Amino acid sequence: MLRMLAGLPVLGRVWLYSLLVGAYSGLAVWKEHSPLRDRWDQPAQIHEVFGLILGLFLVFWTNRAYERWWEARTLWGQLVNTSRNQAVKLKNLLKLPASDLRQCESILIGFPYALKAHLREGCELKQVPGFADSADNPDHVPIYLVSLLYDRFRKWHQMELITGDELRILDLEATQLLEICGACERIRNTLIANSYRRFIQQLVILHLIALPWGLAQEFGDATVVIVTIAAYFMIGVTVIAHAIEEPFGRDEDDLDLNQLCDKIEGGVREIFARQMPLNSQSS
Amino acid sequence: MLRMLAGLPVLGRVWLYSLLVGAYSGLAVWKEHSPLRDRWDQPAQIHEVFGLILGLFLVFWTNRAYERWWEARTLWGQLVNTSRNQAVKLKNLLKLPASDLRQCESILIGFPYALKAHLREGCELKQVPGFADSADNPDHVPIYLVSLLYDRFRKWHQMELITGDELRILDLEATQLLEICGACERIRNTLIANSYRRFIQQLVILHLIALPWGLAQEFGDATVVIVTIAAYFMIGVTVIAHAIEEPFGRDEDDLDLNQLCDKIEGGVREIFARQMPLNSQSS
Amino acid sequence: MLRMLAGLPVLGRVWLYSLLVGAYSGLAVWKEHSPLRDRWDQPAQIHEVFGLILGLFLVFWTNRAYERWWEARTLWGQLVNTSRNQAVKLKNLLKLPASDLRQCESILIGFPYALKAHLREGCELKQVPGFADSADNPDHVPIYLVSLLYDRFRKWHQMELITGDELRILDLEATQLLEICGACERIRNTLIANSYRRFIQQLVILHLIALPWGLAQEFGDATVVIVTIAAYFMIGVTVIAHAIEEPFGRDEDDLDLNQLCDKIEGGVREIFARQMPLNSQSS
Amino acid sequence: MLRMLAGLPVLGRVWLYSLLVGAYSGLAVWKEHSPLRDRWDQPAQIHEVFGLILGLFLVFWTNRAYERWWEARTLWGQLVNTSRNQAVKLKNLLKLPASDLRQCESILIGFPYALKAHLREGCELKQVPGFADSADNPDHVPIYLVSLLYDRFRKWHQMELITGDELRILDLEATQLLEICGACERIRNTLIANSYRRFIQQLVILHLIALPWGLAQEFGDATVVIVTIAAYFMIGVTVIAHAIEEPFGRDEDDLDLNQLCDKIEGGVREIFARQMPLNSQSS
Amino acid sequence: MLRMLAGLPVLGRVWLYSLLVGAYSGLAVWKEHSPLRDRWDQPAQIHEVFGLILGLFLVFWTNRAYERWWEARTLWGQLVNTSRNQAVKLKNLLKLPASDLRQCESILIGFPYALKAHLREGCELKQVPGFADSADNPDHVPIYLVSLLYDRFRKWHQMELITGDELRILDLEATQLLEICGACERIRNTLIANSYRRFIQQLVILHLIALPWGLAQEFGDATVVIVTIAAYFMIGVTVIAHAIEEPFGRDEDDLDLNQLCDKIEGGVREIFARQMPLNSQSS
Repeated sequence: MLRMLAGLPVLGRVWLYSLLVGAYSGLAVWKEHSPLRDRWDQPAQIHEVFGLILGLFLVFWTNRAYERWWEARTLWGQLVNTSRNQAVKLKNLLKLPASDLRQCESILIGFPYALKAHLREGCELKQVPGFADSADNPDHVPIYLVSLLYDRFRKWHQMELITGDELRILDLEATQLLEICGACERIRNTLIANSYRRFIQQLVILHLIALPWGLAQEFGDATVVIVTIAAYFMIGVTVIAHAIEEPFGRDEDDLDLNQLCDKIEGGVREIFARQMPLNSQSS
Repeated sequence: MLRMLAGLPVLGRVWLYSLLVGAYSGLAVWKEHSPLRDRWDQPAQIHEVFGLILGLFLVFWTNRAYERWWEARTLWGQLVNTSRNQAVKLKNLLKLPASDLRQCESILIGFPYALKAHLREGCELKQVPGFADSADNPDHVPIYLVSLLYDRFRKWHQMELITGDELRILDLEATQLLEICGACERIRNTLIANSYRRFIQQLVILHLIALPWGLAQEFGDATVVIVTIAAYFMIGVTVIAHAIEEPFGRDEDDLDLNQLCDKIEGGVREIFARQMPLNSQSS
Repeated sequence: MLRMLAGLPVLGRVWLYSLLVGAYSGLAVWKEHSPLRDRWDQPAQIHEVFGLILGLFLVFWTNRAYERWWEARTLWGQLVNTSRNQAVKLKNLLKLPASDLRQCESILIGFPYALKAHLREGCELKQVPGFADSADNPDHVPIYLVSLLYDRFRKWHQMELITGDELRILDLEATQLLEICGACERIRNTLIANSYRRFIQQLVILHLIALPWGLAQEFGDATVVIVTIAAYFMIGVTVIAHAIEEPFGRDEDDLDLNQLCDKIEGGVREIFARQMPLNSQSS
Repeated sequence: MLRMLAGLPVLGRVWLYSLLVGAYSGLAVWKEHSPLRDRWDQPAQIHEVFGLILGLFLVFWTNRAYERWWEARTLWGQLVNTSRNQAVKLKNLLKLPASDLRQCESILIGFPYALKAHLREGCELKQVPGFADSADNPDHVPIYLVSLLYDRFRKWHQMELITGDELRILDLEATQLLEICGACERIRNTLIANSYRRFIQQLVILHLIALPWGLAQEFGDATVVIVTIAAYFMIGVTVIAHAIEEPFGRDEDDLDLNQLCDKIEGGVREIFARQMPLNSQSS
Repeated sequence: MLRMLAGLPVLGRVWLYSLLVGAYSGLAVWKEHSPLRDRWDQPAQIHEVFGLILGLFLVFWTNRAYERWWEARTLWGQLVNTSRNQAVKLKNLLKLPASDLRQCESILIGFPYALKAHLREGCELKQVPGFADSADNPDHVPIYLVSLLYDRFRKWHQMELITGDELRILDLEATQLLEICGACERIRNTLIANSYRRFIQQLVILHLIALPWGLAQEFGDATVVIVTIAAYFMIGVTVIAHAIEEPFGRDEDDLDLNQLCDKIEGGVREIFARQMPLNSQSS
């Protein structure tokens, strides 16, 4: 249990803010011991109702923030699947020149790295593994890589290395690359509707400002403890929801994009490296 | 924190309404200081239960309004993907005459502008970038642009510039253009069921009318503050939900369609402009 | 605000029922002024808890009813898209005889009218626009229209007017017509599980029967007002949810199927009427 | 209103259990009139909070049970669509020998009957309409019927009665038959996670055991009525959720599989029976 | 009812923890009987509000954990469908050499066993039924099996045993194998956002630490019982949600992967074993 209480870095700031709110609530307690004690008293009840309704809206925000986070995770999981399937088909279903296979391997491995950089600080083609000595400098690297892939497809189709049906099989996966890219951009660029976030934050602040004056009369010195815990709860939910809303950063709750890139690279490399064990088995 | 309280324009009106409700609640406070003080008193409790249940329904409305908003955003994100994929395939997968490519570029770039105007005040073909000197004046511009695209496909197919398989690859994305258009029209034309909205608004008003008389006895002068905050909360949720329900307008919470149009234009232009860097790399 | 209170017809009945419940609550108030005043008193608290849990279940029902309504709307929006896409492809992608195009136009325009009548009071083929002088009298008109369409496809394919790939492009949209029809039938024929609806209605009635006796002692004459409002709330939610569950009728909250049929007709007519402006532009 | 109170058979048992709990609560009331009256008293408040949180979890269970039920209904609705579409394509899109069409009609009509029996008590091929004199006795009848269908497809393809494109059009629907079958098996075989169900049931029982002792002091004789109603509510939700979780049985809330089978049979028969009215109309 | 209370193993630990918390609450009760009785008292009310909001978040967690569990179940259900459909098509739609059919049977049957081991402790190819004497030792066995399958497809296509259209029909199902594998890996590797879980656990612990001191004054000795039940409830929800989040293990709530593997094996074997009963029936 102690380990559970130890908390995470992201929750450290929250404790700080909560203690500040707790200190502020000391004002309301002090008032109860001062000549002003009989003024401005309110029943605690109304704060409870307000707190509950606020809780409903915090759950609303939490749900929506979590859905975005999980959708982002699903998109990257889809990228893992797409890369593997595309690699299996290029290697095992088709009969392509070794040099072309190497290029496709570079594109499939480079794409997640390019997407990761694109979603964070922007991507230069030269930074993508396998493209360090490329002469091009495209604005949008993921689109560039997909263009390379389709250019390959056209060449093979023209040279009759692949049939129209095989082209369509390849197209199914290749199309998903830009769909995943666009969906990740959507999540990065559009937070939950601004008014809601601002509005909920306002209400949390108003609630924390008003709460001590409602509790002080009944709860006395315990007010400080209770307000601190309530502040920890409310600020904590707000801060976590805010952090979760942006899943592509480097915070502790963000997706582990580095590991996912490694995973895709490992899978694709293994597929391209394998020397058809089948030939011996099946012939 | 002050910055957070500053609020947004859309919340400005809300404060105004809330202060009016607060002023009205002064009546109930005044009654407590008048000879009528012992009449019409009610326990505060029942108002709290009513407030909680109302809170549940406000969360219901909020969720539904947000879902519409996010669906609209997803549709435009899908338009970004579709435009890019269609452009990549036209440019890199196929071998088409330069003049046809230019026409397709105009159509793909013009479509989001046409859709934006169509969803707002209605669209004239002449206002769409790239179609200023067109002789046609169709009623439904997005359908017209898609018709142009399919007319192109037919010509290529007849001239055997594209095979049947390539036609089907192009068709997959082109079909989505009208699906996105139709889904956006659905969101614009159909608000959340009218009865629910009217009903929830009625209940909010009834609640705010009754609330001060229930609180005045117990809370005294603080009633004005509490009712104002409660009114801000309830009216705020209603107003934001109403604004979010119509995501294609020009309010601050509406989707930034201009930026999305620019993004699509940038992506499509870059794809069509690139001079196949591959040819040197692969040959 | 007055306008908002004015309400909708569907809410008129609700006020009536609520006033009846309010009048009944007068019994409990009268008891408090009678010799029986000290009997059967209960604390109000337990009614509040019961009211809250009932509120949770009313929200459950509301959510599910709304989801059905929105799914129905989405299906008809899908029908708009499918009709337009099918029309664009028939007109612009393919080269078909004018008489066949006219027949397809009739089928695509007639389908939504047939579906509307099929979902309401049942559909006769003769009532469908464009089929007034048809000799057939099928049981299930939407299936009949789709059969006509596929019969067309077969003829074209046999006459080699369309290739296999083009057949598959047409099939993608034509398949959706019966999927939309079947999904609308599902929504019309299957209400939310009967036990839930009956159970929630029972609980609302039990709650409204018990409520006045719990409030009368504490609230006195205000009981009548409070019970009336609570009844308005609970009966209103029930009535609206019930109305929303059946979205294909002619109530004010039901989908505006007439307008949707007109919209499909307008779009399809415009597509078929346009005299390829392209030919001049592209040749 | 009386009609609404009359209830459904499934709710009959619930009243029985509730009255037993109500009788048990008489113990707590009796204690208040006995020398033990001042012992074991608890404030009612804590029971209310517990009741509310329990209500939240009952809503969770209700939502999940309902989702399963609606998914099952959607799957069967999908089966209606798939059967109709497959029938239309076999009859109107293709030119197949009459004997083969009759066999396909038997398969499409038999499939829902086989699936219904398979999901209930297990299915013998001989019991499926149209297969009474079949010599085979497969373990899994729905798989067997789909195998028959694909065997037909292969024969036609080999005999060049259908092209590759037409094979793919048929495959799209035929694939869905086993997908629907598998999804129904999933719903039948996997209830909501066992721990949750057991846990919620435990909590309902604990709550009902503890409730009377908390209410008796304040509510006196009314305790029996209140506990009975609370028990009716809680046990009712549990029982309905449990019944809804298994939608393929023969309870009143279960899906009306017989009617759905009839509907599919009617639609398929009508499609296969129609003598192409088109030929006269179009030629 | 006794049977329902008996509980499940996973709930055994929960009772243990709850009794520890109950024992701890004895401290607060003892304080009330000690000279310190008038210190640190708090109204119980605030704990109730806190408990309710905590309940909202526990429901949030429960919903999300359950969704993951059900998604995992759906993925394995999809694997059942895919395996059956692939088997039916290989056996009945195509005309393939018996030795190749046997190899495909091994792959389809081995895949779920490989996936099960891969999701648990890691998979060695030698452990997969049917591959015990394979010479290969791939890192990622499911990818390896899919590669084998696609290698087969290529051979058949080159030998013109299957047409391009038939290749595409096979590809549709084969692609899903790696999609299912990747989606299961996503669920196994990514728990619900870490901050939320840690945060909710912290709040449960804080709540249980503070609760007894708030109840002791009003509830006296009953505090111990009430705190124990509350602890059972809160810890129970936490423990179950945690167990449900990881659906591929061997706990009692985890998916019964062994049974699913058996089911797939049975279905696939039956399909491959059947000696076309059709030939007699249809010729």
